[in-house]
Amino acid sequence: MFKSAATVSAKAALPPGSLIHVGRPREEKPYIWVMNYDSEHVEMNENVPTEKVKGLICPGKKNWINIMGVHDVELVRQIGEAFSLHPLVQEDILNTHHRPKVEEFGDYLFIVMKLIHFNEAELSFTNEQISLVLGPDWVISFQEGPPDPFAAVAERISKNRGRIRRMGADYLAYSLMDGVVDSYFLLMENLGNVMEYLEDQVLAEPDRAVLNQLYQLKRELLEQRRAVWPLRELISSLVRGEFPIISEETLPYIRDVYDHTIQVIESTETLRENLAGLIDLYLNSVSNRMNEVMKVLTIVSTIFIPLTFLAGIYGMNFQHMPELAIPWAYPALLAVMLGIGLGMRSFFRRKKWL
Amino acid sequence: MFKSAATVSAKAALPPGSLIHVGRPREEKPYIWVMNYDSEHVEMNENVPTEKVKGLICPGKKNWINIMGVHDVELVRQIGEAFSLHPLVQEDILNTHHRPKVEEFGDYLFIVMKLIHFNEAELSFTNEQISLVLGPDWVISFQEGPPDPFAAVAERISKNRGRIRRMGADYLAYSLMDGVVDSYFLLMENLGNVMEYLEDQVLAEPDRAVLNQLYQLKRELLEQRRAVWPLRELISSLVRGEFPIISEETLPYIRDVYDHTIQVIESTETLRENLAGLIDLYLNSVSNRMNEVMKVLTIVSTIFIPLTFLAGIYGMNFQHMPELAIPWAYPALLAVMLGIGLGMRSFFRRKKWL
Amino acid sequence: MFKSAATVSAKAALPPGSLIHVGRPREEKPYIWVMNYDSEHVEMNENVPTEKVKGLICPGKKNWINIMGVHDVELVRQIGEAFSLHPLVQEDILNTHHRPKVEEFGDYLFIVMKLIHFNEAELSFTNEQISLVLGPDWVISFQEGPPDPFAAVAERISKNRGRIRRMGADYLAYSLMDGVVDSYFLLMENLGNVMEYLEDQVLAEPDRAVLNQLYQLKRELLEQRRAVWPLRELISSLVRGEFPIISEETLPYIRDVYDHTIQVIESTETLRENLAGLIDLYLNSVSNRMNEVMKVLTIVSTIFIPLTFLAGIYGMNFQHMPELAIPWAYPALLAVMLGIGLGMRSFFRRKKWL
Amino acid sequence: MFKSAATVSAKAALPPGSLIHVGRPREEKPYIWVMNYDSEHVEMNENVPTEKVKGLICPGKKNWINIMGVHDVELVRQIGEAFSLHPLVQEDILNTHHRPKVEEFGDYLFIVMKLIHFNEAELSFTNEQISLVLGPDWVISFQEGPPDPFAAVAERISKNRGRIRRMGADYLAYSLMDGVVDSYFLLMENLGNVMEYLEDQVLAEPDRAVLNQLYQLKRELLEQRRAVWPLRELISSLVRGEFPIISEETLPYIRDVYDHTIQVIESTETLRENLAGLIDLYLNSVSNRMNEVMKVLTIVSTIFIPLTFLAGIYGMNFQHMPELAIPWAYPALLAVMLGIGLGMRSFFRRKKWL
Amino acid sequence: MFKSAATVSAKAALPPGSLIHVGRPREEKPYIWVMNYDSEHVEMNENVPTEKVKGLICPGKKNWINIMGVHDVELVRQIGEAFSLHPLVQEDILNTHHRPKVEEFGDYLFIVMKLIHFNEAELSFTNEQISLVLGPDWVISFQEGPPDPFAAVAERISKNRGRIRRMGADYLAYSLMDGVVDSYFLLMENLGNVMEYLEDQVLAEPDRAVLNQLYQLKRELLEQRRAVWPLRELISSLVRGEFPIISEETLPYIRDVYDHTIQVIESTETLRENLAGLIDLYLNSVSNRMNEVMKVLTIVSTIFIPLTFLAGIYGMNFQHMPELAIPWAYPALLAVMLGIGLGMRSFFRRKKWL
Repeated sequence: MFKSAATVSAKAALPPGSLIHVGRPREEKPYIWVMNYDSEHVEMNENVPTEKVKGLICPGKKNWINIMGVHDVELVRQIGEAFSLHPLVQEDILNTHHRPKVEEFGDYLFIVMKLIHFNEAELSFTNEQISLVLGPDWVISFQEGPPDPFAAVAERISKNRGRIRRMGADYLAYSLMDGVVDSYFLLMENLGNVMEYLEDQVLAEPDRAVLNQLYQLKRELLEQRRAVWPLRELISSLVRGEFPIISEETLPYIRDVYDHTIQVIESTETLRENLAGLIDLYLNSVSNRMNEVMKVLTIVSTIFIPLTFLAGIYGMNFQHMPELAIPWAYPALLAVMLGIGLGMRSFFRRKKWL
Repeated sequence: MFKSAATVSAKAALPPGSLIHVGRPREEKPYIWVMNYDSEHVEMNENVPTEKVKGLICPGKKNWINIMGVHDVELVRQIGEAFSLHPLVQEDILNTHHRPKVEEFGDYLFIVMKLIHFNEAELSFTNEQISLVLGPDWVISFQEGPPDPFAAVAERISKNRGRIRRMGADYLAYSLMDGVVDSYFLLMENLGNVMEYLEDQVLAEPDRAVLNQLYQLKRELLEQRRAVWPLRELISSLVRGEFPIISEETLPYIRDVYDHTIQVIESTETLRENLAGLIDLYLNSVSNRMNEVMKVLTIVSTIFIPLTFLAGIYGMNFQHMPELAIPWAYPALLAVMLGIGLGMRSFFRRKKWL
Repeated sequence: MFKSAATVSAKAALPPGSLIHVGRPREEKPYIWVMNYDSEHVEMNENVPTEKVKGLICPGKKNWINIMGVHDVELVRQIGEAFSLHPLVQEDILNTHHRPKVEEFGDYLFIVMKLIHFNEAELSFTNEQISLVLGPDWVISFQEGPPDPFAAVAERISKNRGRIRRMGADYLAYSLMDGVVDSYFLLMENLGNVMEYLEDQVLAEPDRAVLNQLYQLKRELLEQRRAVWPLRELISSLVRGEFPIISEETLPYIRDVYDHTIQVIESTETLRENLAGLIDLYLNSVSNRMNEVMKVLTIVSTIFIPLTFLAGIYGMNFQHMPELAIPWAYPALLAVMLGIGLGMRSFFRRKKWL
Repeated sequence: MFKSAATVSAKAALPPGSLIHVGRPREEKPYIWVMNYDSEHVEMNENVPTEKVKGLICPGKKNWINIMGVHDVELVRQIGEAFSLHPLVQEDILNTHHRPKVEEFGDYLFIVMKLIHFNEAELSFTNEQISLVLGPDWVISFQEGPPDPFAAVAERISKNRGRIRRMGADYLAYSLMDGVVDSYFLLMENLGNVMEYLEDQVLAEPDRAVLNQLYQLKRELLEQRRAVWPLRELISSLVRGEFPIISEETLPYIRDVYDHTIQVIESTETLRENLAGLIDLYLNSVSNRMNEVMKVLTIVSTIFIPLTFLAGIYGMNFQHMPELAIPWAYPALLAVMLGIGLGMRSFFRRKKWL
Repeated sequence: MFKSAATVSAKAALPPGSLIHVGRPREEKPYIWVMNYDSEHVEMNENVPTEKVKGLICPGKKNWINIMGVHDVELVRQIGEAFSLHPLVQEDILNTHHRPKVEEFGDYLFIVMKLIHFNEAELSFTNEQISLVLGPDWVISFQEGPPDPFAAVAERISKNRGRIRRMGADYLAYSLMDGVVDSYFLLMENLGNVMEYLEDQVLAEPDRAVLNQLYQLKRELLEQRRAVWPLRELISSLVRGEFPIISEETLPYIRDVYDHTIQVIESTETLRENLAGLIDLYLNSVSNRMNEVMKVLTIVSTIFIPLTFLAGIYGMNFQHMPELAIPWAYPALLAVMLGIGLGMRSFFRRKKWL
């Protein structure tokens, strides 16, 4: 987060609406394709040059412009001008550290979401920003780069699966949002596996490395929560029907995404509480081990210190120690020592320390 | 939860409204019965084939279609088409990991609830999803499988107990919801017994196994809370009279279920807080035991270490140690040692360590 | 709580509105009295048989029917029918585990409240349910049994103290609610005394028994909170003037009860936080004691272990140990040992361990 | 708090509106003065007998009746009757344990606030209740007793400082409330100093006395929060312009008091969190000290126990121990022991325990 | 904070609206400049004497009066009178301990914000208050002193960058607020670096100094949160369009600042939670170290105490100890001792203590 904030700060002194890319630098060449479809036909134009995008829009059909590579400032500016997007929208598309949000500008809707990638090896997350602009009969989707998370939706259109071809551009926007939220379920599944692994570690042999991993995961979860939580508000404002561009027919689907979002948020919270529980369990098992160490020390010391004292007594050099001359004194003392040892053992048994 | 999310994720790439069963696979054959009744007559058709269900609806009477076995995708699709249920409703019926919710689609109401089964031996919960569709004069109830939780309601209708025969289909839906909420009270009772058992364990002999059980129960409670909490919102939206299909006459009964739901939620919260208290008590009793161990170590060491030092003094081999020749020196030293021992004991008594 | 839930569950399979008593079984015979009064006259009928109650209502006067013993199902049914109370109202009166609530049914208001009894010896609370039905010119009050908490109000009416005789039945209902809330102040006072006693215990000699009492009190407070918290919502809905049966003139008094309820709730919260503070203090004083034990062990060991080592050196049997022959070696060694001992003491003094 | 609740309970069985003083008994004679002023003139009547108060009200001017000594039941009743105050208002004035609140009765506004006095020596707070009644052109202020917190306001009127003489009675009421809230800033300042002192104590030499003081302060803060928190709601309802008696012109000033109240509440919360931090710091420094004790014990034991063992070996009386006869064996053993000791030291150095 | 409260209290007894400077005393001479601009022209008057400010306002143009040095009471009064600012506004400008807020007075808007400076060396924050007054075609900005945080905005106007010259005075006010919020991102970045440094410290060598720094940072964050949190409410009330002085055209920009504010608040919260996590990690690593110390003590004691006992046995002086005469007894005993030592070692290995 701090690294991203750093890059944000680089932008602090610029006038608002200044177009500058904020985020991880990328080297891939940007890539654009445009898809026009209605319930009968579908046409796909790949590798479209930026200046031709606007011309490929077919009125009367649904048009989907998919843009990979938001690090190209010029590209975003050209697209922004072609579709008369507000300067702030252009700025937000380029700033990949934006919170998820939805905003209405005149006749189009601007939606920011986050794809989350989870690196299981390092227990770290990375974000990718997805920006959607939904116009009356077109959708522009901006991604940071490949791999294309929307391939499944594109295939559904070209193969005419489900009802996507029959419905409007708002349904397309819904499908893209649904794709993002569905990806969170996959993420949750991975996190669940990691949690199970860590739990086994804690129960088997809890060392500091596990604890550090638990804290690492906790910190990352905290970070990622900020990518998921705002979705609740975002989608709930869509559900409330505040935006006329979302048709009555599409609303039940949006409501469905809303349910999924709530489910993801609840899973995250459960995960967080389970994580806290695991950390407690770790701490407890460490203090348990300490307990055991103490017990061994106590048992050994408590048995041998009195015996050593006895041996010390008869190691003294007094001239008048009558016991020393008694022939059976030595075996008798050994017997007494054995008796004390056994007595201690039964005392510890009774205390349940052994 | 994670296992269920896994199965959910299998569905991630499909178009919305795709019918696929998400949940535990089941092998029972699905089973349908249809009941028609009014205040005078009642008719029961058992083992109805899916395609005949729609034909058995008697207008003017109240009709209850009870379907066990939501894992049969084809069955749900046929029923869905016969009653023109929205594709998302059909999808939600098949996806048994849905949050409890209520949704209105045109002239029918779609309600999702959860039955919770508690396995006392393993301290684990399992969910069963109950979906209700309430039309103007019919109710369709979908369950995952036997045993039938609605047997009591069916009996009440056939034996004409209470006012169920005289009232509308909305009252039938209420009765089914009431049955689900009542089952939570039973669950609470079982949980209460388990808690009492665990409390006795913690007070009697607190070992790690108890602690693991407490954490296990805590985790499971966290999970199940998600099945119960959304009920509050669900039923409260029914109480507010948002849905015209619920008649004025049935509202006081819905309000009653609402009160019960609140009571269940409050009990769950109390349980959770008591559980946290038990874990604290366990930790405290462990640290208490550690304290005791430390005291024994301290007492034994503190008494014998100085005495052993004294014995060591007179075990030295200096040629000029006048005490060694004194005849009463040995008994005198023993007396001094006894005195030190007794002095220590009274010191510990005063400190309340003995 | 779990015991009560148990009894609730016995009722789970019955049709709603079934009349069955849920709660502690009681053996007292039920007892009913009816009081009619206006600003001039007052008439008291004691020990009224159930079937005559309705006939004793005087239109134009204010009528108060006080019923002790809600375990008599038949009695509640007869009264319910005589005053045409909704079946759910009758059911709720008999189910003494209901949450406090207020509900409006046509021309009467149904109010459920809780009397709390505190057993100082066992640090446990018990609940008694008070149900009030407020009609246009009558109030029916249901209690679980003697002692009668409303004796003071009855006396105020018969002796014409305050303005109760001049005001309507709603003021009577207010007076009864005020009586219940006032009883909570008494409860708070008792709890405060118990807290003070426990605090003294914790500061004087904190043993496990005190800790168990603290946890016991905490658990019971958690339980009782559920009897008091819902009052806030209940009375606030009365204050908002939602119910026309509460006259404008009585509203300031209801507002006063509301203030008292808030005060009780705040006191409970303060109590809970103080309780948590006391538990912390207990734990701290235990760990403090452990510290002291450790210090004694450390001081004794640290002083005598090196000295014992020195004694061990001169207890060795080497033939060539020139020190052993020196006449002043023994007293010199003793002096050295004393020096080491004193040095240690000043070291511990400097460390503030002594 | 519990002591006050005790006195409240004494009142429990009385009819509502009964006039009885609840609070600390006081012996001062009550004292009343009346001030009439407008922008040109000001007239002050000191030591006014209760029965003459009403007569001193000048219509057309602003009138301020200041009453010290609310323990005089008769006085409050006379004033209450003269100004036709609602019986509940009279009761609340006499009950000095009331929560801060504002209530509208017909043409006057009743406001309850709390002055807080802080005893730095005992770290305890005491409350004093201030009741204000604001009529169209008069304000009655009730205080528990001297010293008069409103002296500054009175002086501002008599010396015609600021705009108080030009504005209405509502501005006078505002000035009094502002005086109370300003006194909280002073309180905060004192508390801040105490906190700084305690922090120094915790960092310098943390003993149990400091901990008890921290807990004492925490408990008292909890108590006092209840005097300040309700102010937020109280003043915010004034700000919302719910009460026509507050003129448009005075509203910005009320808003200013509101800002101050929020500031005080936030300071209190910060203080509470800092206090919790201090307690944590104390506990940590105690456990740190324990750590140090453990280290000393471990170092001394670990160095000398093996050496003592070596000395024990050569203290054995076997007839065939060839080392004993070697002349350089003794110095050699001493050298070995020194070596072991130095080795241990460097081991501890490496572990950073020394 | 307490120091500031102290200065606030100095003002407690004064009539509201009294002009007195509350805050750090400053010695810089106040400095004023006035800028008039429209889309074509820009004119800058530096070092303007207070009495000439009003005369420099050009109707029809946008006017920006920037005032450095709010400690000059007379200056604020003169400006306040020239622009007929409400006395409370003048008072709030001089009181540099005010909460961030927005208030509407007739035809102008009064906004208070905070600049935060972070001293990395001392881990402490200082506040600087920024007050903005937005009139129909002018903005007055008050700062505590140099350096001028608005230099970038002034440059943007004079060099005609972005759209600031084309838009109204409300856009200028927005630009200034945006500048303040942007400065928080820089602050976050610095804090992030400090956190990373502290985390490295905790993981490398956790000593008390780090802990004190963590608590220090926690306390300061708590303090500063109060400068940032109220911004949310402040800007959200601007976003809601409550103030007609903010034009429709500027609203999207305000919404953008709102998003940034939320982002800053969320970062602060994440930081706080991470800080809490770090403190936990520190405490854990300390207790971990204690564990290690205990283990060494236990291992050394447990190995050597029994061996010393054995040596003690054969150091006794009994006349009849047959073992003493056996020639191989001594080496045999040594071998036994070695065996015991190795046995212990493997025991500890098995326990994973070595």
